[in-house]
Amino acid sequence: MSEMRAMANAVRALAMDAVVAANSGHSGMPMGMADAATVLFTRYLKYDPAAPHWADRDRFVLSAGHGSMLIYALLHLTGYARPTLDDIKAFRQLGSPCAGHPEVHELEGVETTTGPLGQGLATAVGMAMAERALNSVYGDGLVDHRTWVVAGDGCLMEGISHEAIGLAGHLQLRRLNVLWDDNGISIDGPVSLSSNEDVRARFVAAGWHVVSCDGHDSEAVAAALAEAMADARPSLVACKTTIGYGSAAKGGTAAAHGALGAADVEAVKAALGWPHGAFEVPEDIRASWRAAGGRGAAARAEWEARLAASGKQQEFDARMAGDLPAGAADALASHAVQLRADAPKVATRKASEMVLGVLNPLVPALLGGSADLTGSNFTRTGGQGVFGAPDYAGRHVHYGIREFGMAAAMNGMALHGGIIPYGGTFLVFSDYARAAIRLSAIQTARAVYVFTHDSIGVGEDGPTHQPIEHVMSLRLIPGLAVYRPADAVETAEAWALALEDAHRPSVLALSRQNLPAVRRSGDGLDGNMTARGAYRLKAAEAARRVVLIGTGSEVEVTLAAAAVLESRGIGADVVSMPCWERFAEQPLDYRRELLPANVTRVAVEAGVTLGWERWTGDDGLVIGIDSFGASGPAGDLYKHFGLTGDAVAARVIAHLG
Amino acid sequence: MSEMRAMANAVRALAMDAVVAANSGHSGMPMGMADAATVLFTRYLKYDPAAPHWADRDRFVLSAGHGSMLIYALLHLTGYARPTLDDIKAFRQLGSPCAGHPEVHELEGVETTTGPLGQGLATAVGMAMAERALNSVYGDGLVDHRTWVVAGDGCLMEGISHEAIGLAGHLQLRRLNVLWDDNGISIDGPVSLSSNEDVRARFVAAGWHVVSCDGHDSEAVAAALAEAMADARPSLVACKTTIGYGSAAKGGTAAAHGALGAADVEAVKAALGWPHGAFEVPEDIRASWRAAGGRGAAARAEWEARLAASGKQQEFDARMAGDLPAGAADALASHAVQLRADAPKVATRKASEMVLGVLNPLVPALLGGSADLTGSNFTRTGGQGVFGAPDYAGRHVHYGIREFGMAAAMNGMALHGGIIPYGGTFLVFSDYARAAIRLSAIQTARAVYVFTHDSIGVGEDGPTHQPIEHVMSLRLIPGLAVYRPADAVETAEAWALALEDAHRPSVLALSRQNLPAVRRSGDGLDGNMTARGAYRLKAAEAARRVVLIGTGSEVEVTLAAAAVLESRGIGADVVSMPCWERFAEQPLDYRRELLPANVTRVAVEAGVTLGWERWTGDDGLVIGIDSFGASGPAGDLYKHFGLTGDAVAARVIAHLG
Repeated sequence: MSEMRAMANAVRALAMDAVVAANSGHSGMPMGMADAATVLFTRYLKYDPAAPHWADRDRFVLSAGHGSMLIYALLHLTGYARPTLDDIKAFRQLGSPCAGHPEVHELEGVETTTGPLGQGLATAVGMAMAERALNSVYGDGLVDHRTWVVAGDGCLMEGISHEAIGLAGHLQLRRLNVLWDDNGISIDGPVSLSSNEDVRARFVAAGWHVVSCDGHDSEAVAAALAEAMADARPSLVACKTTIGYGSAAKGGTAAAHGALGAADVEAVKAALGWPHGAFEVPEDIRASWRAAGGRGAAARAEWEARLAASGKQQEFDARMAGDLPAGAADALASHAVQLRADAPKVATRKASEMVLGVLNPLVPALLGGSADLTGSNFTRTGGQGVFGAPDYAGRHVHYGIREFGMAAAMNGMALHGGIIPYGGTFLVFSDYARAAIRLSAIQTARAVYVFTHDSIGVGEDGPTHQPIEHVMSLRLIPGLAVYRPADAVETAEAWALALEDAHRPSVLALSRQNLPAVRRSGDGLDGNMTARGAYRLKAAEAARRVVLIGTGSEVEVTLAAAAVLESRGIGADVVSMPCWERFAEQPLDYRRELLPANVTRVAVEAGVTLGWERWTGDDGLVIGIDSFGASGPAGDLYKHFGLTGDAVAARVIAHLG
Repeated sequence: MSEMRAMANAVRALAMDAVVAANSGHSGMPMGMADAATVLFTRYLKYDPAAPHWADRDRFVLSAGHGSMLIYALLHLTGYARPTLDDIKAFRQLGSPCAGHPEVHELEGVETTTGPLGQGLATAVGMAMAERALNSVYGDGLVDHRTWVVAGDGCLMEGISHEAIGLAGHLQLRRLNVLWDDNGISIDGPVSLSSNEDVRARFVAAGWHVVSCDGHDSEAVAAALAEAMADARPSLVACKTTIGYGSAAKGGTAAAHGALGAADVEAVKAALGWPHGAFEVPEDIRASWRAAGGRGAAARAEWEARLAASGKQQEFDARMAGDLPAGAADALASHAVQLRADAPKVATRKASEMVLGVLNPLVPALLGGSADLTGSNFTRTGGQGVFGAPDYAGRHVHYGIREFGMAAAMNGMALHGGIIPYGGTFLVFSDYARAAIRLSAIQTARAVYVFTHDSIGVGEDGPTHQPIEHVMSLRLIPGLAVYRPADAVETAEAWALALEDAHRPSVLALSRQNLPAVRRSGDGLDGNMTARGAYRLKAAEAARRVVLIGTGSEVEVTLAAAAVLESRGIGADVVSMPCWERFAEQPLDYRRELLPANVTRVAVEAGVTLGWERWTGDDGLVIGIDSFGASGPAGDLYKHFGLTGDAVAARVIAHLG
């Protein structure tokens, strides 16, 4: 048996043993891709297990995340500190870093959390974009690495793969190499049950290089990878493999996808010529793997020397660490002060553009774009060139009509490091990207979503374009900060917080329509009030009987309603609540003082009412929209749905009885 | 000027006039596609404006829904009762059926609501599937029509287009013909800003026929459509067009996408040789259009005669009307009675399969499938053949790993009529399909989503596969019924309700893990209790101090907690709440009696707590999970997250103080 085959068999054996021990998981894919992965990790992948955060390492993404034992075995064998053999023995048990699917925070060497199919590939596109962006700043000496992906048929059947390969092809991301585990099997059976696509032709149509090989022939894989690396396009390396390779009983069938039985495993080990016990790896094979893992140490040391000699180390390290340049926070604070003086009546999407006008020159890590709504989302500022081949120095991305692909790419950039991605679309189309936004949150990736046209204020475009449930549904995602600013000042504050939150993704829900300034010089509301999540914008003049809570464009409505109520002798506080998550993080005293239980609390938001009871309580009132929207001018719609100062005041008065 | 060109110009003029009047909307696309659409509507499309519900009509889907004036003009000119000229003059105004984007409930002849890009195409795939399924039952004499789509670059860049064309190619839907408005322009500018894809090659790779033509040459379009109709594959007809055709100033550029100014419109009309005033169509051109609209009347009459002579009219009409066969409801009710006697401990996904075993033989309209998780979702029952070429009589669809495409196709089937679609995936991946689920609700389409693995009960697969926020986020979508049944009986009840709701989509959130029977013979809970949304499963024995509310797998937990509380002398009701929407529809008295304000209400659900305050109020307690899940055996996770009878009881006791 060749050394390569023996090394691959070690991967197979660990995968099988772990899955048997857990009685759960997927060994079929690791068994099928073990040979190709062994070639990659022993000859081509640039990495150093002793320095897993080496900035110029290649990124390896297991897009087919259910085959997690493949990467766990590889990390273990090549000498990463974790997973240990005990970690692998605890595969899929609570507390083990060897989770069911690879989790980025569990193990160094796992570059992104995968499992939701197609997203690993799309995330890798973002990593490859980040690499080129940084290369354009720091040059080949400091940034020159590849992004490798292992993707299965599931990844390639998902719609997001279309967006990902289209974007990569357009951007000519030549350092992106995808190994397709072409095993012809999906969970239901042969792929032919549901697809007759010519995958190779499809990638060629998207501007990719394609090469095919026998995925079990190490030299053929090596040749294919070499060809892929030499080509000027992103590459698909189609590895023809057998799922569950080595299993006479189940190999090459859907039955090999999940767990093999213990008896099956014994038969496979016998067939593979692997006479070792469970979780045993002979020392010579371990040594070969450690040697492979040691290949990158010298290159890493040379790179560190180059960095030290470059005169850019401090800047480079700070950027990769995600630090904001000195001055950015102050500039934003000054901008907010100026806005309070100017009190512009602008749409918050426009206010966001004003913020970006301040930020983009100061924060080179910002790389932003839009899913073909640049002029509506206002995500491009003056001086931002277009990011793309051959000049990757531009910092505006034309993502195309690819919301999901954009969001996943943003995750990839944030995880790669050195880039703070932002991207825009209409809020209603956050649904298209929702699965990637969830992965932003799971991965605590600093991705900033600029979602404009955030309510029925969209107007004439009608129900399909009017978010109703979206702001609330985004608030439901754990670990995501959702901002709905009321004016230009709150927009600037939200942007400042989104950037400060190095380990939390943020959504900015921004208006299409102009909104009056609600925060002005001399109002006493100094500092970043949005940081508290909610704050008292106006105190009751008459005896307080009600607290009106508004967000975004409805803060204006609550102010108008409060005026009506005060004119009737009903004292009304107005609370602006741009960020629920931050408000929930405030001390209980602050929250109770702002929203006292003994005063009627009324929430006003142009969206679903469900959820607002958290802040209004049993005796409160929630004024919102619990149906889909309608097509008409925005002003007409606000009247139609009862979201005017008069209508809100009338409902409050009726409620107070 | 040729008659065809003059007729097309009438479409262009109406589109321009309407957009100018609304000062909003998109005339560029209707101007570009007017010639091709005129060929389609005058020569090939099978329709009769006098009988818009003719079952065997061709379906026309304007996937590029922003170009809504194209279809409004066509429906008006060909003689549909609506839109009238006044409707068109009120384009995009509140109350006009000529909404910003085509809305299926606003106008006959609008077959589906479009606007969210890519979904019209994917919905059309479902319509084409429905046509083949019905053809397999009723034959060519009664069901033999085409589905036509107009799609733009935006539709084809969206990921869902990949899933749609892959599915259509695999299923060899030869009666599906897509006209691609190949104008090379997206909102941001030339398509080349974001894509270098060879669209034709991509469709060929997916098994489609492709033909190209000059979209402004009527005879060339006609020839291309004829070729497409003759081919045995689904067809892409690439129509090379100029966006904003006729505008020297803006035609062929992104500036033509939206509204032209009034002066621009005058210039275009002069260039087109259209000397008529706003909204004016000369009588001869109107007559030509009416004649075209009258083409189908004879065919429709012949079809009606065939139907009358077929001996199947009653059955056919009932099926197209969406009526359930006699006996189906009774069979389900009997099944539920038997389940109460048997009290099986099964996963609710398994219980769903048992229901389908009853239903599938009785309800031929059911056409179900799974996005490659057939053996996990349990959506295929014995005797269900596979739907696909050449035999479309099978009633199980292998959708492949295409959740979004599946959901949109389900919408298309439901809208086509004659089919009740259901489809499965893991609940967590409802995020992939969310934008289509929203369109199910907007369109009140009877689509039944079978979402299994509905909580941390997923177990070892970990956070990426464990829904946390999903049940609540689906509850947020207006007009969607979300069921989370607690046992086999509630599962059968939920299925019965989902089918009864001919104009509401439903989600069934089903467990992976086995659940004990909570509804048994003799418990007095006869009839479909799930229809009430929530009901008292167990009354307090000791003096009632608490009402425990559970859903799905946590009903078992609340029962266990109640036992602990009762043993401590704390009386506890247990309320099962499988469907919030139906509970909200109950009379106030019922709701108050079940969840009295003067008793501590405690909700227990293995998901986000946000939203539950609606039912628990200020003084209540919500026990859930406000973080992502973890990888481990399901039982360990339930303990870890405090969702056991003991843990819940302890929290309740602490809360009561």
